[in-house]
Amino acid sequence: MNIDKKFLPLIVSLSVILGAVAMFVVMQVTDGTSAEPVLNDSGDADTELAIDQDDGEENAAEEAVETSGSEISEDKAEKFHKAYSIIMDRYVEAFDEEELLEGAINGMLEVLDDPYSVYMDQETAREFMDSLDSSFEGIGAEVSMTNGKVTIVAPFRDSPAEKAGLRPNDQIVGIDGDSIEGLSLYEAVLQIRGEKGTTVTLTVERPGVSEELNIDVVRDTIPIETVTSELIEEDGAKIGLIEIRSFSESTATDFEEQLHALEKEGIDGLVIDVRGNPGGFLQSVEDIGNLLVPGGEPIVQIENREGERIRHVSNLEEEKEYPIATLINEGSASASEILAAALKEAGGHHVVGETTFGKGTVQQTLQLGDGSELKLTLFRWLTSDGNDINEVGVEPTEEVRQPDFFYVSPVQAEDPLEFDMNSEQVENAQLMLEGLDYDPGRTDGYFSSETEEAVRAFQDDEGLDVTGVIDEDTAWALQDRVVEAVRDRENDLQFKRAIELLIENE
Amino acid sequence: MNIDKKFLPLIVSLSVILGAVAMFVVMQVTDGTSAEPVLNDSGDADTELAIDQDDGEENAAEEAVETSGSEISEDKAEKFHKAYSIIMDRYVEAFDEEELLEGAINGMLEVLDDPYSVYMDQETAREFMDSLDSSFEGIGAEVSMTNGKVTIVAPFRDSPAEKAGLRPNDQIVGIDGDSIEGLSLYEAVLQIRGEKGTTVTLTVERPGVSEELNIDVVRDTIPIETVTSELIEEDGAKIGLIEIRSFSESTATDFEEQLHALEKEGIDGLVIDVRGNPGGFLQSVEDIGNLLVPGGEPIVQIENREGERIRHVSNLEEEKEYPIATLINEGSASASEILAAALKEAGGHHVVGETTFGKGTVQQTLQLGDGSELKLTLFRWLTSDGNDINEVGVEPTEEVRQPDFFYVSPVQAEDPLEFDMNSEQVENAQLMLEGLDYDPGRTDGYFSSETEEAVRAFQDDEGLDVTGVIDEDTAWALQDRVVEAVRDRENDLQFKRAIELLIENE
Repeated sequence: MNIDKKFLPLIVSLSVILGAVAMFVVMQVTDGTSAEPVLNDSGDADTELAIDQDDGEENAAEEAVETSGSEISEDKAEKFHKAYSIIMDRYVEAFDEEELLEGAINGMLEVLDDPYSVYMDQETAREFMDSLDSSFEGIGAEVSMTNGKVTIVAPFRDSPAEKAGLRPNDQIVGIDGDSIEGLSLYEAVLQIRGEKGTTVTLTVERPGVSEELNIDVVRDTIPIETVTSELIEEDGAKIGLIEIRSFSESTATDFEEQLHALEKEGIDGLVIDVRGNPGGFLQSVEDIGNLLVPGGEPIVQIENREGERIRHVSNLEEEKEYPIATLINEGSASASEILAAALKEAGGHHVVGETTFGKGTVQQTLQLGDGSELKLTLFRWLTSDGNDINEVGVEPTEEVRQPDFFYVSPVQAEDPLEFDMNSEQVENAQLMLEGLDYDPGRTDGYFSSETEEAVRAFQDDEGLDVTGVIDEDTAWALQDRVVEAVRDRENDLQFKRAIELLIENE
Repeated sequence: MNIDKKFLPLIVSLSVILGAVAMFVVMQVTDGTSAEPVLNDSGDADTELAIDQDDGEENAAEEAVETSGSEISEDKAEKFHKAYSIIMDRYVEAFDEEELLEGAINGMLEVLDDPYSVYMDQETAREFMDSLDSSFEGIGAEVSMTNGKVTIVAPFRDSPAEKAGLRPNDQIVGIDGDSIEGLSLYEAVLQIRGEKGTTVTLTVERPGVSEELNIDVVRDTIPIETVTSELIEEDGAKIGLIEIRSFSESTATDFEEQLHALEKEGIDGLVIDVRGNPGGFLQSVEDIGNLLVPGGEPIVQIENREGERIRHVSNLEEEKEYPIATLINEGSASASEILAAALKEAGGHHVVGETTFGKGTVQQTLQLGDGSELKLTLFRWLTSDGNDINEVGVEPTEEVRQPDFFYVSPVQAEDPLEFDMNSEQVENAQLMLEGLDYDPGRTDGYFSSETEEAVRAFQDDEGLDVTGVIDEDTAWALQDRVVEAVRDRENDLQFKRAIELLIENE
């Protein structure tokens, strides 16, 4: 498989963090007493926020209180300390103090029932910081902890994760054959990552698929370029296409440059593709919003726990003359959803594809003073019109599904699939064959003689042994050809519909 | 269904707690500074142990330290308090202080990875205490929280739970159609309980069964008599049979009385039946051990976290002349396992049936000062010979399985089962029919015409519509007849083998 030679280490090394808009890289210790640092500071993408780490104070309880204000009331604190002491002193096995207290912190986070609020211990936080310094190698997917399971929010486009067939909402339950039960999100991510060229086998539970899938992903370095663009001529019209893969610090600048280049060419319409884009910096999407959303209209509204909202209003001076269509799918999350909703609601533009992921909250990483960190949900964001899309997603104005074979799970053929079998695996293979124009006769999972003929034809074309039986080689070849077909613009019905709409509109 | 008219409110109201040997009912506040109250106090079954609740001290942290000794070191405490303050003050939603700290306590318990160490909040603890005062009505099963799931340790014998077909290791995932995800063990138990005559529908995941089962259990009052006995004459030999359903406070006294009555009759052998007995008080099983285990031999060894062992040695003066066989199964847990292992290892007696549950730890309930409680594992116990049976169980000397239909899952017939179907449900029905002497032709899950004939014959005998189709009425009738057959001593191969061994032995 070919991989782009441009890389995106910062973004993908933050694969866990990326889904959080307003995510600030925490490196220095600054004063953390300001109540709403993110809201007050929307002009500066580099804002660093941290809870004061060490001011020389010796009294532990007092310092925590000084730093953050809320004191545990005495009777409640007494109860917690009593439970702690009993467990430390009397449980049948000795436990490490730190381990118990990390358990306590995780227990508080569990009460919140928020997959985006997580604790990172010193080691994990440090490893994450280290990985920021070097070029990142991994599988290229954003994950979150949802209902206790490590869950794919979205594989990055053209990433090893996407090529291997991982999909949004896949739940990773094993890595290289070992269960990851009990691992934190960050521990799991560190195991998934690894050197370019090595393979990691993920055991995945997929909603609607009864058996666990074992998916081999060949790790790679991940492209750093978050914005790519192209000029397309269709029926005499000039259409600009800008794809945003994630919202990193440089994304808005890159976007602006490429947008202006396209505008110089005199485009008649613009397609913005945020499919499979898991989000990134709030500032980044706001800056892009300022280039597209009509002036005076809100790009996004940030709401704090008291329900107070701050509207971030577009300062665009000249409204765009050309029509815009944004492509979305269930892998479009967070900042992607802000952009799509703003273009739809405030701009009245087309949004084409499928309902987005639905992440309507803002996290910030806060230091706990010993190198460990708390990533905590501090705000909600609402769309231009004030809609909360959390767990709902942004609906397209034009719903367009891709062809069925886009959604097929990888075929597991450890036991070869052959004539007269009847299974989900056979159904997957049939959908793939159909998508590749080898007519399998049926797509209901029964391996008919027509299916066998289609397999033979496929094997013949691929230079494989012509057996009519789907063994591992044939399954891999099917998977490779399907990935190619998915990346062929001719099969991209969402893209095609966007172009149609822009030309009609013109 | 017939239910015994003797009741056991105390035992079963403690259905969650019962599995813990050395479980003391916590009612008064006494001094909790003694390090090993259980070990030092084996002569007194009424020992109450609690952490000092309120000594008028105002300083929370200090009191916890005074009471239990272990202080959180300053930097660790600082970190916990900082995390607490950040979450309290800044998380996007406001949370109750108490809820967060209960989360913290549960988080510490999670670190222990021990299904028997649990936290009970004020309300739950109070409801449990209340239920001790009145006659208890419920389903009659011991449950534990294992891998985050409410799991049946054992249904009590002849209880509604057993009659409805619940089995050890069934995981309860729903109650009356609602998921119980997120509920604590105690919250779940309080929902399972209810008035006699009412029905609770439990949604159950059973190891080895692919689909969830919905099992209706009609609640009832639960017999208080923990010991029943009988004199059996077989081939001219007099065999005493004593069944112990659980180890409550009065169990040892009742056992002694009935044993002496049997001995007066001049028995030639003794069968002790602890199948489906989930355990109870450590003192209770020690007292019974003193009546049966050869003098000078250890009944059980209690080991603390430092690995120090205290041997509880039998004080029996006159060794028993007659042979003894103990009946066990996978529902025999805790105190039952102590007794079976002692009789096997120290007494050299027969143990007949199947490997037991495997619970080798001792819990104690400790008060946290505000009415809430911590049930915590404080000790391990080892068998007479020093074997740790935790998660292993006690193996029988004579392994005997019951007939297949003893292990059949209830038939789910919301959609009627009929000719030419092929499913696990059909297989269950076939095993039941076979056990009831209606030959279904096969027991592989294919609903053949022989199976249809067997269903017709069964329906005819039961006065049901003779359709050959298994609808809900037929499924219930099958279940009822199977329960009767299970309770028929003629089908009890384990019991029969025990009798054979005793007569051979004689």
